[in-house]
Amino acid sequence: MTSDKDPRFLRSREAILNAARQLLLEGGPGAVTHAQVAERAGVGRATVYRHWPQAAPLLVEAMSTVPLPFLDEPTSPIRDWLQRELASIAQELELDNVRAVCTTLANTSLWDEGMDTRRAQFAGIIADRLVIALDEAQARGELTLTLASRDAVSLAIGPLYYRSTIERAPIDHTLIEAAITALGAWSAEPPLSS
Amino acid sequence: MTSDKDPRFLRSREAILNAARQLLLEGGPGAVTHAQVAERAGVGRATVYRHWPQAAPLLVEAMSTVPLPFLDEPTSPIRDWLQRELASIAQELELDNVRAVCTTLANTSLWDEGMDTRRAQFAGIIADRLVIALDEAQARGELTLTLASRDAVSLAIGPLYYRSTIERAPIDHTLIEAAITALGAWSAEPPLSS
Repeated sequence: MTSDKDPRFLRSREAILNAARQLLLEGGPGAVTHAQVAERAGVGRATVYRHWPQAAPLLVEAMSTVPLPFLDEPTSPIRDWLQRELASIAQELELDNVRAVCTTLANTSLWDEGMDTRRAQFAGIIADRLVIALDEAQARGELTLTLASRDAVSLAIGPLYYRSTIERAPIDHTLIEAAITALGAWSAEPPLSS
Repeated sequence: MTSDKDPRFLRSREAILNAARQLLLEGGPGAVTHAQVAERAGVGRATVYRHWPQAAPLLVEAMSTVPLPFLDEPTSPIRDWLQRELASIAQELELDNVRAVCTTLANTSLWDEGMDTRRAQFAGIIADRLVIALDEAQARGELTLTLASRDAVSLAIGPLYYRSTIERAPIDHTLIEAAITALGAWSAEPPLSS
């Protein structure tokens, strides 16, 4: 039997995580499969399964070590930027792999402390970034928020997450528009200053 | 070894499901624990664990056999009714048991066909009921929906679900208000006709 303290066990675990991280950065979450991870890490597929019987927790681990490619560095007009960012989140949520990550985070975190830390991290990053963007939109006079920014986060992301993981249906353009509109009063024309 | 065809196995499975259903109806989702189900069914706790290693899938099974106590039979003013219904969903979502059911539905349905059927059922009931209520509100002149009713469903439920299962934080009154407001233009005073 291998154990958590066995150096070979730890080495293969590290190699697998590195491979998953590389694949994630090169090909997105869809590329992180047992087969591809095994090949990239130079280990047998059975070894990957021994460490991570399911792909989703491995992907969660890998994602927690690379920067989240969403909602970062808002540009004006913020409404257009937000539209693009939510459309890009929507596109990712079409992938079974990403649905698996989100729902595994939500589910497993109920009894697994490590996973709960990841969940909180993930939720925190999304919230912090969105709040920065909305603050910026308000400072630029592009938006008058009609709700607390904390509620704005749930209102912007929640509908996409529900549509994807409970309704299991495509997130169309109209849903994204509705979520953005719900945040407050957007000025029709943003000021011209950059 | 027991098997799926063994009559005793099937009998204990049935007894466990009946017990879970009774407990659910009497005490809500919080009452459906391995210990209480075992006691009510008159079987050992180990037997319950053999059939359902985790409580959430058992609760999903039991819930699928009893009427969902939400969003049914809208009353005028629909806005007040919707507020009460969403507040009651929010209260349920405070229970770990209910969070476990929702996230197990979303997660396990990705690879388990039976669970996927439950997920679709659940999403369908929520959507159908909410659409009926919103149609009624429009017919009564209480609401002018500013989005497709399909999007209204995601916008009403999604923020609560995200707040509860990803942000793992309480669903406060302001979030419910924001979600209701996002659906369209509500008339300040509903017509007096019942």
